[in-house]
Amino acid sequence: MKKLKVAVIGAGVIGKMHIANLAKGIPGAELVAVASPSIAKHQEWLSGQGVANQFADYKEMLTKVEVDAVCICSATTTHLEIVKHVATLGKAMFCEKPLDVDYHRSKEIAEIAKQAGVPFQVGFNRRFDTQFRQLHQVVSNGEIGTPQVVKITSREAELPPRGALKTAGNVFIDIHVHDFDMAQHLMGDTIERVYVEGGAIADPSRADEEGFVDTTVITLKFGRGGVGVIDCSLLAVYGHDQLAEVLGSKGLAKIHNTTPTTVETFTEDGVKRDKPHFSCLDRYPASYASELTAFVDCVLNNKPIPVGAKECLNAERVALAADISYREQRPVYVREVN
Amino acid sequence: MKKLKVAVIGAGVIGKMHIANLAKGIPGAELVAVASPSIAKHQEWLSGQGVANQFADYKEMLTKVEVDAVCICSATTTHLEIVKHVATLGKAMFCEKPLDVDYHRSKEIAEIAKQAGVPFQVGFNRRFDTQFRQLHQVVSNGEIGTPQVVKITSREAELPPRGALKTAGNVFIDIHVHDFDMAQHLMGDTIERVYVEGGAIADPSRADEEGFVDTTVITLKFGRGGVGVIDCSLLAVYGHDQLAEVLGSKGLAKIHNTTPTTVETFTEDGVKRDKPHFSCLDRYPASYASELTAFVDCVLNNKPIPVGAKECLNAERVALAADISYREQRPVYVREVN
Amino acid sequence: MKKLKVAVIGAGVIGKMHIANLAKGIPGAELVAVASPSIAKHQEWLSGQGVANQFADYKEMLTKVEVDAVCICSATTTHLEIVKHVATLGKAMFCEKPLDVDYHRSKEIAEIAKQAGVPFQVGFNRRFDTQFRQLHQVVSNGEIGTPQVVKITSREAELPPRGALKTAGNVFIDIHVHDFDMAQHLMGDTIERVYVEGGAIADPSRADEEGFVDTTVITLKFGRGGVGVIDCSLLAVYGHDQLAEVLGSKGLAKIHNTTPTTVETFTEDGVKRDKPHFSCLDRYPASYASELTAFVDCVLNNKPIPVGAKECLNAERVALAADISYREQRPVYVREVN
Amino acid sequence: MKKLKVAVIGAGVIGKMHIANLAKGIPGAELVAVASPSIAKHQEWLSGQGVANQFADYKEMLTKVEVDAVCICSATTTHLEIVKHVATLGKAMFCEKPLDVDYHRSKEIAEIAKQAGVPFQVGFNRRFDTQFRQLHQVVSNGEIGTPQVVKITSREAELPPRGALKTAGNVFIDIHVHDFDMAQHLMGDTIERVYVEGGAIADPSRADEEGFVDTTVITLKFGRGGVGVIDCSLLAVYGHDQLAEVLGSKGLAKIHNTTPTTVETFTEDGVKRDKPHFSCLDRYPASYASELTAFVDCVLNNKPIPVGAKECLNAERVALAADISYREQRPVYVREVN
Repeated sequence: MKKLKVAVIGAGVIGKMHIANLAKGIPGAELVAVASPSIAKHQEWLSGQGVANQFADYKEMLTKVEVDAVCICSATTTHLEIVKHVATLGKAMFCEKPLDVDYHRSKEIAEIAKQAGVPFQVGFNRRFDTQFRQLHQVVSNGEIGTPQVVKITSREAELPPRGALKTAGNVFIDIHVHDFDMAQHLMGDTIERVYVEGGAIADPSRADEEGFVDTTVITLKFGRGGVGVIDCSLLAVYGHDQLAEVLGSKGLAKIHNTTPTTVETFTEDGVKRDKPHFSCLDRYPASYASELTAFVDCVLNNKPIPVGAKECLNAERVALAADISYREQRPVYVREVN
Repeated sequence: MKKLKVAVIGAGVIGKMHIANLAKGIPGAELVAVASPSIAKHQEWLSGQGVANQFADYKEMLTKVEVDAVCICSATTTHLEIVKHVATLGKAMFCEKPLDVDYHRSKEIAEIAKQAGVPFQVGFNRRFDTQFRQLHQVVSNGEIGTPQVVKITSREAELPPRGALKTAGNVFIDIHVHDFDMAQHLMGDTIERVYVEGGAIADPSRADEEGFVDTTVITLKFGRGGVGVIDCSLLAVYGHDQLAEVLGSKGLAKIHNTTPTTVETFTEDGVKRDKPHFSCLDRYPASYASELTAFVDCVLNNKPIPVGAKECLNAERVALAADISYREQRPVYVREVN
Repeated sequence: MKKLKVAVIGAGVIGKMHIANLAKGIPGAELVAVASPSIAKHQEWLSGQGVANQFADYKEMLTKVEVDAVCICSATTTHLEIVKHVATLGKAMFCEKPLDVDYHRSKEIAEIAKQAGVPFQVGFNRRFDTQFRQLHQVVSNGEIGTPQVVKITSREAELPPRGALKTAGNVFIDIHVHDFDMAQHLMGDTIERVYVEGGAIADPSRADEEGFVDTTVITLKFGRGGVGVIDCSLLAVYGHDQLAEVLGSKGLAKIHNTTPTTVETFTEDGVKRDKPHFSCLDRYPASYASELTAFVDCVLNNKPIPVGAKECLNAERVALAADISYREQRPVYVREVN
Repeated sequence: MKKLKVAVIGAGVIGKMHIANLAKGIPGAELVAVASPSIAKHQEWLSGQGVANQFADYKEMLTKVEVDAVCICSATTTHLEIVKHVATLGKAMFCEKPLDVDYHRSKEIAEIAKQAGVPFQVGFNRRFDTQFRQLHQVVSNGEIGTPQVVKITSREAELPPRGALKTAGNVFIDIHVHDFDMAQHLMGDTIERVYVEGGAIADPSRADEEGFVDTTVITLKFGRGGVGVIDCSLLAVYGHDQLAEVLGSKGLAKIHNTTPTTVETFTEDGVKRDKPHFSCLDRYPASYASELTAFVDCVLNNKPIPVGAKECLNAERVALAADISYREQRPVYVREVN
C-alpha cells in the first residue's frame, strides 16, 4: 500500500513530538524529511529518530524530497508564508494551532487553503483525546439531554518565557483557542458573546509585558442560549489541570485529570496521590498520534478532514473578541470581530 | 447552667429543620415556643417534637412565653417587621438569609439590629459546614499561598415553585447570596465587580416570569486583584451539586460533593455510584445545628457573633449588582449599589 | 405516647456513646438511669448529660428506678451475670458484642435470653450503618447476581492496651466478630471453614502476651460454596480502614471509607486528602443511634429484633474456629466448635 | 548503533502483542523474523506489520535469518524444547511466563539457561507497569515503613476456553504466577506458606474439568513474618480488576484500576463511570513495551537482566504449593515443593 510521504517543518517542542510520532509509526505515513531554520541544533536528535533528510530551508526540502503532505509546526507567525508556499505546490497540510496570532492573517491562511483545494487540518489535538472524545460522544448521544452549560478549566504549570507572546500570541489566542474550539464542539453551538475577567495575577511582575495575562475567567453566551465559562491560570504549580463538563437537561457529563499513576499513600499525615501531569505533552500523548493518524487516513482515502481552518478561525475569532473584552472591560459580541 | 430560651418564628421547611435541631438538643439551648401564621397546619408535627407552646401570632408568643432569643425563619419579606419588633424587646436574633429581597430594606434590618445592640446572627450555614470550614482553613493557613481564583458551583435539583420569587427573591438574592458570602470569605477579600451571563435556560417556559433566571455564570473581580466564577443551575436533575475551590500561588484546594453512601456497583454496564444529595438539607445537615450551637454559645457567653448582618449585607449588595449586570448586560461595580 | 424507659449499665467509651445518644434523644426512648462500678468517676459527665439517677450497683438501680429496657455496655466478661439478673426481671435487653469472650458462656447467655422470652438485641452496629446497609441491599436485590466472594478489611488505628484481652477477648472475638457477622449477613450464607494467617506483626514486642494477635488474614469457605477473606491490622497508623465488597455472577459491589472532609489540596508535592476516621466511633456514629432506634421501636411495637443472640453466637462460633485455626495452623470447620 | 536482531516464536495473542510492539519500535531492537507452527494463518497480519521473514519452523528461522535474541511466546508447554534449542545457539532469550506448566520442567529450563550463560528474561510485565513500579518504589523507599501485609486482587473478565489448562496451566501457574512474583517483589521477601480456598464457583459447570478452578482466595505467610492474601476470579464480568496494596508500620500504599476514560455521567439514575479495562493487554499495554525495552538494553549493554528464570521459578514453586494446598485442603510450606 502506498504510504503518504510526510515532511515536517519546525523542530521545536511540538515539532519534535510530531516527528517522534511519525518516526515511531503513524499508520499509512512515512516521515521523509524535516526542515528547521536551526537544523544544526537538532541534527543529532533527528538522526536518532532516523530522519536522514534534514534541511534548514523548507523550500529547499520541498524541492529536493518527494513530499505528499507537510506538517507545519514552526513558530505561529511563520505559518502564513509557509502555507502560501506549500499551497502553490498543492500538497496536503497539517498545521498547528493557531493559524496566526493575527486574526486577519489567519483568515488569509484559511482562504489560501480553501482556494488551493488541498486537505488542510488544524492541530486541535484535544478533539482526538480519548477523554474529550468520549465526553463529546456522551453529549452528542443525548445522554445528558439538551446541553445548557459548558465549563472548561485550562491550567498550565509553567508560564511562557518573557517575549514568547510576540510569536506565539497571548493567552486567548495561544491557549484558549483550544478551549473555545472545544466549548463550541461540545455544545454543538457557536459562541456569540464573551466577557473576560483576568490579569497578571499569578505573576504581577509581568504586568508590564504587552498583552501578558496569566489568569482568566471567561463567560460564554452561545447562539442557541446556552452559557459557559472557561478559566485559565498559566501558573498552576501543581500541574496541567484540564477539566471539562457539560450540563444538560438530563444530567451532567464531566472528565477528570489523568495522573502519572494511581498510587495512593496513606500515612499519619493524610492520603497522598499523584498531582496531574506536567504539560499537555504528558496529558494528551496519544491524541497527537491520533490526529496525525486521522489526517493521513483522510488524505490517503479522500475523506473529509475532521477539523480544519474553518473551525480554527471560529475559535480564533472568539479569542480576538475575548482579547477586546479584556482590554475594554465589556462583554463583546463575536460578530463585532471581522 | 442556665439555658438560652429560644423561640422560633416560621415553620416552613427551614423553620422545621431548625425546630427539629433545637428539639433534638442544641447545647445550652431550650426550645420554648414556635409561632407561625399557619400554626394549625403544623400543630401535630410540632407536638411530636415536644413543642407545647404554639402560636399563630409571634407577638403574642413573645408576650406570653419567656424568650431569650428568637430564630427567624419566616418568609424573607417578613423579616423586617419581625426584626423591628424583636429588637424593641432587646432579644438576641438568629435570622435566616437573606435579610430581605430588597437591599434597602436589608440595610434597614442591619441598622435596626446594630442600634438595638443585640446579638444578631445570619443563617450562612455553609460557613459551619465541615467541608467549607476545612477549605477555608486550608486557604487561611496559607497552604496554597496567596489566593488568586475562587470557583463555586451551586446547583439545585429542583426549581422553586412559580411565584416563590416574590417572597424569596430571585436566584441572585436567594441562592447566590450564599455563594457571594462564601467567595468573599474564602478569598478574604471583597468582590468589586461582577458580570452575569444566564437566563431561563433550564426551563424556558418560565422566561415570562418577572425576575426568573434558572442558570447563571457570574464572574467576580476582587478588590485585591483576584478573580472568580460562580455558576448555578436551579434544575440539575442529578442533585444538589455544590463545589468550591481556591487556586493560590502555591496550589489548589477544593471540596467535593458528599453522597448518601459510598457504594459502587460494577457490572457489565459500567460502574455506578450515588448521585449527590438532593437538597441543602441533606448535604449540610450538621451545619445547621452547628450554626445554632455557635449562636447559642455566643449569646450565652457574650462572644462575638461569627457571621452577622454586615456579612449578609456585603453579599446582598453583590447580589443586587449581579441582578443589574444581568438586566443591563454589562459588568457592574458593587460600589454602584448603595 | 408511652416512652421506653432505658437504663444503661457501663459507662466506658461505648457506654458513654450510647448514653450520649439516648440523652440527645432516641425516638421513643427515655434515658432513666446509668449504673457503673466506677460511677464516681463519671458523675460529672453523666450530670452534664442530664442523667440524674446514677448508681454504682446495677442491681440497686433496677430496684430503685422504673426500667423497661437495659442497655448492657459493661466489660464483656460481666455480661453473663448481668443478663442472668435482668432476665429474671423480664426486661428487654440491648447487649454489646460479643456476648462473652468464652463461647460456652455466650451460649449460656443466648439460652437465658431465649428462655426469658424478652427482646434481646446485640450491638452489631455495622448492620445499621448506611454504607453497609446499602451494600447489603444491593447484594440482596440481586444487582450483582449470585454472591461468590466476600472481602472485608477491618483495620484499627490503635492497639488495645496491654491486658485488655482478658476482659475484651482477642482479635477474633472482639474485632472479627463484627466481620464474621457481616460476612455471613452479606453472603446470606454460613461460614463453614476458616483458616488464619497472622501474628504479632505490627507490634512483635507483644508476642509474649497470651492470645495477642494484631494482624490477620482469614479465609472463609461458605456453606453454599462461596469464599471470602477478612484481613485485620490493629495498628493501621493512618486510621480506621473498613472496607467491604461482594463479588457476584453479575458484578461487584463495594464500599469505601468515609473521611472527615472531602478537601483535596494540590501542591507541587502532590495531592493530599484526609485520611480515614480514627475509630469506629467516628466512622459509624449514626449507626449506634440507628441500632438503638430500631431496638426501641421493636420493643415498643412488638416487632422482631433485627439482630440478636443467635446471629452473635453464629459469629462467635466462627471466631472460636478462627482462634483454633490460628493456634493449630490448620483450616478449621466451624462445626468442630460446640 | 548496532541494533539487536530479534526473532519472535509464537504468534498468538501475546505473540502478536510483542510483534506489534517490536514493529512499532523498541529502542535498539530490530524485528527480523517470526516463526509459528500456524504461520499461514498469520501471514497477512504479519505482512501488515512489515514482517518479511515468516516461518512455520522456528529451527529453520534460526538457520536462515541472522538473529541475536529470541522472544518466546509459544504455548507454555513448548518452552522447554525451544529454550533447549536456542540455548545451544547461544542466543539471548525473552521467555513468556510461566516457564512451563510443570515445575520440574521449569527447573530444567532455568538450569539450561543458566548453563548456557545467555541473557534470559521472563515476561513478568507487571514489574514494568507504571502503577506497580511506583507502588514498589514507595514501599522500597520506606515511605510506609516495614512491610507487614500485601494484598493483591487479580480478576479476569473471561474464562479461559475449555481445554486451555492442558497447555497453559491452571489458575495457580498461569494467572497467580504473576501475583506470587509481585507479592514477593513488593514485600522484598519470600513466601513460606500458602493456603487456598476456592473452586469452580463462577462456572460450576466446569467443575468436572481436571484442574479447573475459577475462584481463589490464597493466604500467604512470608519468611520474615509478614502475611498476605491474593484473590482471583476468572469471570469478573465487569472487567480486568487488578489491585495491589502493601500495609507497613508507617502506612499503606495502594494502586487502583485504570479505566478507558475518566468520563462521569450524572443523571437521575446515579453517577456512571467506565468499568475497568477488559484484559491485561488493555490494562498494561506500556508494560509490555517496557519489558522488551529493558531486555534489549540489557542484552546490548551487558547489564543484568531485571527479572529472570530464578524469580519465575520462585513464583512457580509457590504456585505448585498452592495447587497442593487446594487439592489437599491444608496449608502447604513452599519448601515442601522440590
